Amino acid sequence: MSTRTVAPPPEGHVRVRATVAYHGGPFHGFAINPGVRTVQGELEQALSTALRQPVAVTCAGRTDRGVHARGQVVSFDGPADLVEPVALTRAVNRMLRPDVVIRDLAVTTDDFDARISCVGRSYRYRLLYAPEADPLLAGLCWHVPGPLDLNAMQEAAQQVVGEHNFTSFSKRNRSKPLETFVRTVLAANWDHRGPLVQFSVTATSFTHQMVRSLVGLFVEIGRGRRPVAAVAEALAVGDRQRVPSPAPPHGLELFRVAYPSDLDREVSGR
Amino acid sequence: MSTRTVAPPPEGHVRVRATVAYHGGPFHGFAINPGVRTVQGELEQALSTALRQPVAVTCAGRTDRGVHARGQVVSFDGPADLVEPVALTRAVNRMLRPDVVIRDLAVTTDDFDARISCVGRSYRYRLLYAPEADPLLAGLCWHVPGPLDLNAMQEAAQQVVGEHNFTSFSKRNRSKPLETFVRTVLAANWDHRGPLVQFSVTATSFTHQMVRSLVGLFVEIGRGRRPVAAVAEALAVGDRQRVPSPAPPHGLELFRVAYPSDLDREVSGR
Repeated sequence: MSTRTVAPPPEGHVRVRATVAYHGGPFHGFAINPGVRTVQGELEQALSTALRQPVAVTCAGRTDRGVHARGQVVSFDGPADLVEPVALTRAVNRMLRPDVVIRDLAVTTDDFDARISCVGRSYRYRLLYAPEADPLLAGLCWHVPGPLDLNAMQEAAQQVVGEHNFTSFSKRNRSKPLETFVRTVLAANWDHRGPLVQFSVTATSFTHQMVRSLVGLFVEIGRGRRPVAAVAEALAVGDRQRVPSPAPPHGLELFRVAYPSDLDREVSGR
Repeated sequence: MSTRTVAPPPEGHVRVRATVAYHGGPFHGFAINPGVRTVQGELEQALSTALRQPVAVTCAGRTDRGVHARGQVVSFDGPADLVEPVALTRAVNRMLRPDVVIRDLAVTTDDFDARISCVGRSYRYRLLYAPEADPLLAGLCWHVPGPLDLNAMQEAAQQVVGEHNFTSFSKRNRSKPLETFVRTVLAANWDHRGPLVQFSVTATSFTHQMVRSLVGLFVEIGRGRRPVAAVAEALAVGDRQRVPSPAPPHGLELFRVAYPSDLDREVSGR
C-alpha cells in the first residue's frame, strides 16, 4: 500500500467501492478522454445520473484501448442518502450493459482509494494456439498458429518474478520524465487448456504496456526466434528497442486486484 | 440420408467440402440476401475471387441472423486445376477473417452435398446463469439471472428425444404450405460448468427456430413458470401460441454436422 494519504469523502457523502467488468473492444481505454468512448466516461455519466450530482471515479488499473476487465475496482463518493447498493447497481447497469457491468458495489471505509490502496494487480493474457482462428473468440484472444514451445515460455516467464527494472518492457510517458520502471512481479505463469494458452501475472503494480510487452517477447521465445536468455538480457539493458512489439491488446484482461482489507478478510475466514 | 440425388460437378470440376466457423453477430444469417451482409454472400464472394469463376455454396444448416457456428459444413464445385486445399483455405481466410474462417477444406466425392448428404445436426445453446451479465461473453450467451431448476430443465429436455411433431416449436414458412414439422431428436441434454449452463441437442434435422423455441420453454420451466408437463402438452397440441417466445439467437451455435462417410471412418478407426 502506498503511503500517500487518501482524502475522506465530503460531508454527507460516503465512499463507495465497485467491481467493474467491461469488454475493451468498443472503448478507447479506461481513462476519460473527450470525444471518444471510454469506460471511465460512461461510468461517470451513469453514476452522475443515478446519484444526481457529478461523480468522479478512481480505478485500480488504467487499462489501455482494447484491453478487457472482469475485476477492475473503482472508488467514488456519493450522497449518503442516495447510495443504496442494490438499487444503484441496478440503475447503473441498466444504463451501461452489455459493454460495461458493475459486478458488486458496497459502501467502504473513508480511507479507501481504488488506486492508492491497491497492493496487487493480476492480469491474464490469452492466446488461441490453433492452426485456424476462431471467430467466436476473435475479440478475446491473440491467434498464434505456432508452433510454440510452451516449456520455454514458462521458463522465460519465471525470469521476471521478483523486483526488476522493466524499462525494456515499458512505454514511456513524456510527461513523467522522472518515472521509475522498477516493479515487483509476484507470480508469472503460462498454462493451457485445449487450444487456449494463458499467461497469468500478478505484480504490486505494472508499467505502461508491461504485460503486452512481456507476452510479445515470450511468444517470440515460444516460436524459437529468441532464446530464453533474452528475458534476462532485456531486464539488464533497459532498452525497449531490443524487445519485440507488444502483443495486441484484445488478448489482455485485468482480472483481479487486491487490497489489504480483503487479505485480512481472507485470513480471518470471512 | 435423403434419397434425393446429387448432381455431379461439371466437367473439369471437383466437389469440395469445407468446415466453416463464424460469429453470427455481424451477419443477417447464413443464407444469401441481397443488400445485407450474410455468411453465404461473403463465402461465395471470397471463393469466386480465389477460384476466378462464380461459386455457389450449399450448407448443412441455414443458421438464422445472429446464430453462431463452429461446425457448419458447406459444399461447392471448383475447377480441378485451381482447387489446392491449403492454398485455397489460406486465400479465402485472408479475405474473410476474423468473422468467418474456413477450418478445413478437402476435395470430396462427386455425390456429396452438404445439405442432402447430412444425417445429423448438433446445436449448443449457452446461458450465463449468474446474477450479473459478463461483458466478455455478452455476444455468446443468453444472460439468465435465475434462479433456475436445472433438474427440471433436464427432465423437460428428455421429453423431446425421439420422433415428434414440433409444430409448436417451429416458425412456419408461408411459401412452404405442405411443410412437415415431424423431426427425430437423437439427444437433448443440459449440463453446466460454473456459471455457463449449456443445452446440447442433436437431430437428423431441425425445423425453423426449433432449438431457440425449445430453449425458450425449457428456461420458463427452469424458472418455475411452467411445469415439465408443458413439453408433452406442446408436442401434443401443435400450437406455437401456447409456448413462450424463442430464446435470443446469440446463445445458439451450430457446432457439428454428421455425414455417413464420417461415421464409416470413425467405425473403421481412421
